[in-house]
Amino acid sequence: MFREKIKVLDCTIRDGGLINNHNFDFRFVRAVYAALSEAGIDYMEIGYKNSKKLFSPKEFGIWKFCDDEDIKKVTDGIKSNIKISVMVDVDRVDIDDIKPQKLSPVSMIRVASYVKDIDKAIFLANNFSDKGYETTINIMAISRALDNELTECLHQLEEECRANIIYIVDSFGSLYQESTEFLIKKAKGILKSKEVGIHAHNNQQLGFSNTIEAIIHDANYVDATVYGLGRAAGNCPLELVLGFLKNPKFDIRPVLDLISQEFIPLRNKLEWGYVIPYAITGMLDEHPRAAIALRESEDKENYREFYESLIGGDEE
Amino acid sequence: MFREKIKVLDCTIRDGGLINNHNFDFRFVRAVYAALSEAGIDYMEIGYKNSKKLFSPKEFGIWKFCDDEDIKKVTDGIKSNIKISVMVDVDRVDIDDIKPQKLSPVSMIRVASYVKDIDKAIFLANNFSDKGYETTINIMAISRALDNELTECLHQLEEECRANIIYIVDSFGSLYQESTEFLIKKAKGILKSKEVGIHAHNNQQLGFSNTIEAIIHDANYVDATVYGLGRAAGNCPLELVLGFLKNPKFDIRPVLDLISQEFIPLRNKLEWGYVIPYAITGMLDEHPRAAIALRESEDKENYREFYESLIGGDEE
Repeated sequence: MFREKIKVLDCTIRDGGLINNHNFDFRFVRAVYAALSEAGIDYMEIGYKNSKKLFSPKEFGIWKFCDDEDIKKVTDGIKSNIKISVMVDVDRVDIDDIKPQKLSPVSMIRVASYVKDIDKAIFLANNFSDKGYETTINIMAISRALDNELTECLHQLEEECRANIIYIVDSFGSLYQESTEFLIKKAKGILKSKEVGIHAHNNQQLGFSNTIEAIIHDANYVDATVYGLGRAAGNCPLELVLGFLKNPKFDIRPVLDLISQEFIPLRNKLEWGYVIPYAITGMLDEHPRAAIALRESEDKENYREFYESLIGGDEE
Repeated sequence: MFREKIKVLDCTIRDGGLINNHNFDFRFVRAVYAALSEAGIDYMEIGYKNSKKLFSPKEFGIWKFCDDEDIKKVTDGIKSNIKISVMVDVDRVDIDDIKPQKLSPVSMIRVASYVKDIDKAIFLANNFSDKGYETTINIMAISRALDNELTECLHQLEEECRANIIYIVDSFGSLYQESTEFLIKKAKGILKSKEVGIHAHNNQQLGFSNTIEAIIHDANYVDATVYGLGRAAGNCPLELVLGFLKNPKFDIRPVLDLISQEFIPLRNKLEWGYVIPYAITGMLDEHPRAAIALRESEDKENYREFYESLIGGDEE
């Protein structure tokens, strides 16, 4: 019953790094790497490649930069077939930092972009593709994209871009399954020569079901994170994806151990998951930044006032 | 865009009572009643009607019995259009305890039944219907029903039963949206004269999406609980349902206040929601009782051993 083409990409350290300034220590990242490898996960996204000219390594953890030697400190001595992925943001990467793939421990580079920046994203992805990397473009905030602009964007990707995987990213956790179905079908209809992926946030507890919905409509690349770790409400939980997929190469048990041993203690230090202000930004199709600010304030449980602040209706 | 026929039934106190032996105090239940009334919810299910010959009021809280005078202590003095519902289980109700509806504060009685007990359930529902109540039959553990037996059960309900609403109950939180679609379509195809409802558990974070899926396929009665309160993983969260439904009669704000003021403190005392052992029983289509026992033991975070204990494979 399983579909062999489905690939699972774990972005626990990369997306989780958005909560702690990319400061996971080597012991923790090695534990994640070992468990994901044993579980048969296809890709592990370990962080961002950001330009050190734009961001100071004094202010951010190492997984905001992902130097090769730091990646090797994670992978050394652990038996693994997992491929390492890094993410870049348009306008934040120094293209000269990306060396040819055969000199790098990184296999895949994913370019995150809004629809409006797609020309820049294509330029980056083609550059990385020419250097030998597997590449993807992840279309962020897709719930806010106007249909005509998204159509043009997808045609451009099909015709001009050498990335072979295009992700639909529900940045705000606002999609219901009907819209996920619409977007995946639309993407598959235009991107004839490419695979489609899904990256779903969990604001409304729909991260997993939107991932299933995307799989039903032939998305073959799915993002997930261990115990749903990620900024704000977090992501589609990896353990649930493994419970759903029937591919015999996957083994959920190392991930269960990892949650027991590392993520339950971590959850006492970092907040993510189903928290009402994140649910509210999801249902209102808003970026979670206002909710993140609320959770750091004394008003953190004042949901009504927060809700009313967002439905102000002063946008005409 | 809204569908006027959709009715929302909140079963927070009834399903939540399974965690605390039905011991919610009057202050708390009145706060829930007031908020649900203000939010425009259609029904509030307040507990079970169990026979005091079978269960001792010394051992269980009052919401296991739902005496009229206790219900009135909740509703007295609060302006409301909400209807009160109670649940009965086959073989646990004393039919003589159910007086004619016009003498009762209860509007609806729901009969919970496995497929195998459907004859008894129909007998009860017809009795209550004749006494003037709105009645439903809630088919529990439907993920385990053999298709031929479910078909016969649905035909019997259509032909012999005077309950006008039949619920699909995902007791183990194991359904994915494809199976929800299959079951709702199947029920709608046979139950030509009745409405169909959905009661979804949240083991795999699919309670809300399965509820949406059921709505898409024309279920018009949806169960939910405030902040997902309920035994083990709990239920489809009411606040998310209100964010999804566009019916202008609903107001999410009283529910947000209720969560802030009552459910955040309660969550520090009672455990429910996304907890890995409940996710495991969901993905394995098992009753949560083994997971509930685990969570009360010292081994509560030993997920691997728990998982392995359930996949033993000694059932042939």
